Amino acid sequence: MNSPRIVEVRKNILKQNDEIAHALRGRFEEAGVFVVNLVSSPGSGKTAFLESTLTKLRTDFRVAALVGDLATENDAIRLARSQVPVRQIITGTVCHLEAAMIERNLKDWNLHELDFLFVENVGNLVCPSSYDLGENLRVVLMSVTEGEDKPLKYPTIVNSADVAVITKTDLADAVEFDWPVAAKNLRAVRPGIEILQVSAKSGSGMDAWLQFITSQRRDVVEHLVWHS
Amino acid sequence: MNSPRIVEVRKNILKQNDEIAHALRGRFEEAGVFVVNLVSSPGSGKTAFLESTLTKLRTDFRVAALVGDLATENDAIRLARSQVPVRQIITGTVCHLEAAMIERNLKDWNLHELDFLFVENVGNLVCPSSYDLGENLRVVLMSVTEGEDKPLKYPTIVNSADVAVITKTDLADAVEFDWPVAAKNLRAVRPGIEILQVSAKSGSGMDAWLQFITSQRRDVVEHLVWHS
Repeated sequence: MNSPRIVEVRKNILKQNDEIAHALRGRFEEAGVFVVNLVSSPGSGKTAFLESTLTKLRTDFRVAALVGDLATENDAIRLARSQVPVRQIITGTVCHLEAAMIERNLKDWNLHELDFLFVENVGNLVCPSSYDLGENLRVVLMSVTEGEDKPLKYPTIVNSADVAVITKTDLADAVEFDWPVAAKNLRAVRPGIEILQVSAKSGSGMDAWLQFITSQRRDVVEHLVWHS
Repeated sequence: MNSPRIVEVRKNILKQNDEIAHALRGRFEEAGVFVVNLVSSPGSGKTAFLESTLTKLRTDFRVAALVGDLATENDAIRLARSQVPVRQIITGTVCHLEAAMIERNLKDWNLHELDFLFVENVGNLVCPSSYDLGENLRVVLMSVTEGEDKPLKYPTIVNSADVAVITKTDLADAVEFDWPVAAKNLRAVRPGIEILQVSAKSGSGMDAWLQFITSQRRDVVEHLVWHS
């Protein structure tokens, strides 16, 4: 995988992606929509977490979601229960979302009518790291059932994230999850990273998460107002 | 990712990999070593499952393991507790093992002195699908905590597997795991696939798994004797 030709092709792909992401970021900023990119391994609970987030946020904000998977519309169907606009992106064999896929799937959505746009990436701890989607916030989710060592084994994705959310905390006792070790490992890779703890099942920690993202959005929007 | 140039480069990589895998398969067959490739998402319990497998098998068989990860020697250190030869393969940013990595890391090991060689792939449900490592058996692991829907979302990896092992069954009740749905989804993608259920923690199901692989190995070895 490291012949000069492959490296060159990969660099071109990433450069092209960065250009589209840059343009997207401009559109999001201009429209005042705050964009959150959720990355994690398969089965870490992204969809349950997102469904709970959308359902709770939609009483006070205008929210929408794009969800990526290799196959099936299942996530979009589940998320539609939250009664917000949701669109599925099917990637086929591609193990990550790219900025061009986001751009293409925004289609007719009027970004000025949104406060939050959530992007659920393909479940993968490697591929999505390098692909900027123009988001404001990249959130890496890790479930307690995956074990405390994952940040050390998948440092690139943690390093590219702005905040870590530890999910399925209702199972923490059953798997004897070691909180201090998990925090130490996350911060060994990404010093100072904010760590939140949630259980979409019990609802524990969801309020703190919602406060976190609404305050992050406020910072960005006020910053925009300040400069306009 | 679908420009003709990229497709061509990818085809060349896979063709080259297949050639090395073919040569490896010949070496394994000639030496009478049965090779098992474990694939799964991160945190599905591959290492705990493999540690238990190595520890139990080594009383009757000569076993060794190669373990892949992007970073850290942690798995090799854990697996060394089983007191069998273990070697770590660090892939950097590559999200799968390739046949050339296996070939390189076998180095001085005498394959004639082994009955089983286990390969623990990088935790990823997408990338390892396309890379033949010359193995006899590809095992896809899925933990009950990942949910029943993963086979539908990651069909390629399930389709490339010879057997499915559902792990962490001690947590099945806590996550309300739906066994019939999981089996239905696995077999929708890979009709007739054998499904085993294990908990490395409680030991439940490990005997059935060991019987399964020793009988698979016997079939191959007897087949070889028959032809020699």
